[in-house]
Amino acid sequence: MPNVSGIAASAGIAIARAFILEHPDYSVEKRSITDVDAEIAKLEAALEKSEAELQAIKARTLQELGEKKAEIFESHLLILNDPELIDPVKSKISDEKVNAEFALEETAATFIQMFENMKSAYLQERAADMRDVTKRVLGHLLGLQVVNPAEISEEVIVLAEDLTPSDTAQLNRKYVLGFATNIGGRTSHSAIMARSLEIPAVVGTKEVLTQAKNGDLIIVDGLDGHVLINPEDSVVEEYKSKQAAYAAQVAEWRKLRDEPTVTVDGVHVELAANIGTPNDVAGVLENGGEGVGLYRTEFLYMGRDKLPSEDVQYNAYKTVLEKMEGKPVVVRTLDIGGDKELPYLDLPKEMNPFLGFRAVRLCLDRQDIFRTQLRALLRASVHGNLRIMFPMIATLGEFREAKAILLEEKEKLAAEGTQVSDSIQLGIMVEIPSTAVLADQFAKEVDFFSIGTNDLIQYTMAADRMNERVSYLYQPYNPSILRLIKMVIDAAHREGRWVGMCGEMAGDATAIPLLLGLGLDEFSMSATSILPARSQLTKLSQADMKELAAKALDMQTAEQVVELVQSIEQ
Amino acid sequence: MPNVSGIAASAGIAIARAFILEHPDYSVEKRSITDVDAEIAKLEAALEKSEAELQAIKARTLQELGEKKAEIFESHLLILNDPELIDPVKSKISDEKVNAEFALEETAATFIQMFENMKSAYLQERAADMRDVTKRVLGHLLGLQVVNPAEISEEVIVLAEDLTPSDTAQLNRKYVLGFATNIGGRTSHSAIMARSLEIPAVVGTKEVLTQAKNGDLIIVDGLDGHVLINPEDSVVEEYKSKQAAYAAQVAEWRKLRDEPTVTVDGVHVELAANIGTPNDVAGVLENGGEGVGLYRTEFLYMGRDKLPSEDVQYNAYKTVLEKMEGKPVVVRTLDIGGDKELPYLDLPKEMNPFLGFRAVRLCLDRQDIFRTQLRALLRASVHGNLRIMFPMIATLGEFREAKAILLEEKEKLAAEGTQVSDSIQLGIMVEIPSTAVLADQFAKEVDFFSIGTNDLIQYTMAADRMNERVSYLYQPYNPSILRLIKMVIDAAHREGRWVGMCGEMAGDATAIPLLLGLGLDEFSMSATSILPARSQLTKLSQADMKELAAKALDMQTAEQVVELVQSIEQ
Repeated sequence: MPNVSGIAASAGIAIARAFILEHPDYSVEKRSITDVDAEIAKLEAALEKSEAELQAIKARTLQELGEKKAEIFESHLLILNDPELIDPVKSKISDEKVNAEFALEETAATFIQMFENMKSAYLQERAADMRDVTKRVLGHLLGLQVVNPAEISEEVIVLAEDLTPSDTAQLNRKYVLGFATNIGGRTSHSAIMARSLEIPAVVGTKEVLTQAKNGDLIIVDGLDGHVLINPEDSVVEEYKSKQAAYAAQVAEWRKLRDEPTVTVDGVHVELAANIGTPNDVAGVLENGGEGVGLYRTEFLYMGRDKLPSEDVQYNAYKTVLEKMEGKPVVVRTLDIGGDKELPYLDLPKEMNPFLGFRAVRLCLDRQDIFRTQLRALLRASVHGNLRIMFPMIATLGEFREAKAILLEEKEKLAAEGTQVSDSIQLGIMVEIPSTAVLADQFAKEVDFFSIGTNDLIQYTMAADRMNERVSYLYQPYNPSILRLIKMVIDAAHREGRWVGMCGEMAGDATAIPLLLGLGLDEFSMSATSILPARSQLTKLSQADMKELAAKALDMQTAEQVVELVQSIEQ
Repeated sequence: MPNVSGIAASAGIAIARAFILEHPDYSVEKRSITDVDAEIAKLEAALEKSEAELQAIKARTLQELGEKKAEIFESHLLILNDPELIDPVKSKISDEKVNAEFALEETAATFIQMFENMKSAYLQERAADMRDVTKRVLGHLLGLQVVNPAEISEEVIVLAEDLTPSDTAQLNRKYVLGFATNIGGRTSHSAIMARSLEIPAVVGTKEVLTQAKNGDLIIVDGLDGHVLINPEDSVVEEYKSKQAAYAAQVAEWRKLRDEPTVTVDGVHVELAANIGTPNDVAGVLENGGEGVGLYRTEFLYMGRDKLPSEDVQYNAYKTVLEKMEGKPVVVRTLDIGGDKELPYLDLPKEMNPFLGFRAVRLCLDRQDIFRTQLRALLRASVHGNLRIMFPMIATLGEFREAKAILLEEKEKLAAEGTQVSDSIQLGIMVEIPSTAVLADQFAKEVDFFSIGTNDLIQYTMAADRMNERVSYLYQPYNPSILRLIKMVIDAAHREGRWVGMCGEMAGDATAIPLLLGLGLDEFSMSATSILPARSQLTKLSQADMKELAAKALDMQTAEQVVELVQSIEQ
């Protein structure tokens, strides 16, 4: 019984047969043909099959993941039906008497190279789309057994090297009980998708694909990060019990949905959710979220070929505010640049994008973009309890400049006779060390802080968490990180401000006792983490956790802090 | 009289005629020839001229900048005499009956492309060398007026877009009185070279090349960062006075060479120098350096095709220690990776090299490299007052691991009967925010700290200082930076440790009063900054500067801190 271990990416236990998702060999040979009509008919048939597939994928994506995610498949359909691509393929078949696969690949390669050579990042994205579509049609032409995750129709565990956005968009939750991948970390795309689909998952196993084969019985233990291959019956029974216990625990958590989060010594903290689109609000409410602690507005700007208009944005913000029915909604203004690109902005490549021209740095420079977003937010503010926060603030000067622009737009709207709420709280992300260290000065001017631990840890440890060679330095429990968090919370409380946290750390069971002890007011996390966190918090005493945190602040290493937390009874 | 402003990169005033250093057009046309022998003779002549030039440059570089810098021209000579390159060029001329320029360019292009396609970064460097050599020979073939900075034989001010290492290596200090460039910043290569050559320079003027032409009268004001073009006589007179005043000041500083650095209230601080090679020691002593505060060992590893042996390193360390005659020498272990590459190590490209696999992170992984350096240092320790420090330490775990390796090598040497000093101080660079915040814990285990402000500021502000779009965030005077420095110094002093600083900030006249007030024990800077710094420090009272620093720590912005420092009488 070979077992492999990895990173527990999404909680729960799944038991089913392995379904290996691998991409086949698309290589093409040039052949001479005699029957041109037959070859063209073969091409037409492959195009039709591809179209039907894409329509189905698009419909499912639209239903399950919303309009934005579905747009990518709309672009694929446009390419598939583009006579500028298809006509030259047909001419090539008839003029050069070559096989359809070869004609298609050669023609597409010309376009792909042309797009790639253009400076526009937008056209480079089109090259990627064309490559995808070509592959799909080639698959049909070559008669390949292309594994289509959308067609899985029995209960399975999907095993893969990694799952692409296109793969995960096609997974049917009904049949895919869990998955395990060779690569990826807790914050990789596939891990985030697994948590949002509530499918148990283990990622970064390095070798699940070499150890398991199609049809093997697999147990994915997303609680402890193990994948068991062809386990003995007794082990299966053991895991069935563990599965049942976890299901019972989930049911127990469900009962807390409408309860407040109050510690044993009577301290109330707020549990909020991080969202990316208005569609995510349903999940927040189902999971008992008391607010939205981070609305990432980037998705509004992505998957399109130009900036979203003020009205497009207004409608999105209004929808979220209305659906949240007066509960607080913290909207983060555009955090683009760095590793997050917008093709149509054509930003220059940077040597160190994480230390570069992004978020509020870009917004203060490209004020057209910033002002449009702020106007949309201000107009939407009358529909609920809006809070606005600026990302990547490093100096007080930046905050003052951003705030002045907001006030200017507010005055303009007032002059135009547009209603704007007068109780919009204005805060900042604390994700840059300088801002944490100077939090006492910031606290005099902001309404609240939201600590963005993902970036704060990265900068404080000088380690890119996406870089596997230094990811060991991404240490949320390093005493230096805890000390910075304490500086921020103490500084805010002295000025009567509240402090939230919207990084991964806020929903982490090991961090929660420490954060409670440090005095954090609001914990914002994936919606699915809210009920477990509430369950944990309601069993803790803040007074005890204060003592725990004080000890942790005086430790030397992250490992000692973890040991300390694990030593307490929870 | 058009003036341009830029960054004052190297102090002093220079007045002379403009000498514009521009690279000509090397484009080549294909021509048919009939007289093959004449064409080959033309090629031979160009090769000979190039060889003579390269020999001369190599000799001058060797003399003025040392062996390492000269090696690059040795590689150029090898390429020039390589029959694998030259024979095909000749064959091309005779077989295809084409002109020598075309034959050379086509042949070289094939090699260059071949080298570039290889994965090895080493071969990619060779491609760059071959491109240089080809250009030189082409210049002769085309009869271009190639401006050779080495041949300047009257007093001039060099104006250029930027100066490459190859350009600066060829500048003759006797005739080049100053220079000004369009691009570059205070820490760019050309600026650092100007300071080490003690030539007044202004960089980053953006437009000096468009405003000035050859032969214009130019004043370079490296004190205030101005370049004056064809100034009126009265202005020239004014600047001659300024020049004389500066010369008098320099003479005044010279008198301080053998004086200690004692403040008006009797506090002694140590002024040390940053060096890169044993050749730099002479400048340290000439400028009254009380020690070497940072010996960057990277140069030992650069400009060669394999790792330096233990003996090569031992000899370099021994030379520096001996020349410093018992004064302390702080050697930083290898800080490579990030933006500093070693071709022969073939390190993977990283998305964010500044947050990546570099310095001690790499050394703990590639222990073969690390142990060789540590052995060389330990062996050299008996020849002077050696202190060792590790760069980029982010956690106590890393320090303990590095220290354990050092102790292992020390024991091995003892077992082999090799003498090692027993009084080697062991410290760390504090250049990562986590380490500054946790300095109290580190202070229990290290002998000293050296604050590396260049990186510390970069990480604390989350801004790549080489990235022009965010370089405004590289703020040495931001109160958050001063607070981190204070944390480090206070923590060290509580444990009886000393604290140095080896970033640019330590030699900065605006920072010096603050650093004295914060309690810094050792200031390490460019050798040429030592005497001005000593002059400044001996006029300050530490007690007064403590009050000044306390005020600065409580300010909100970097601008306020600068105003505060400027408000005091110095």
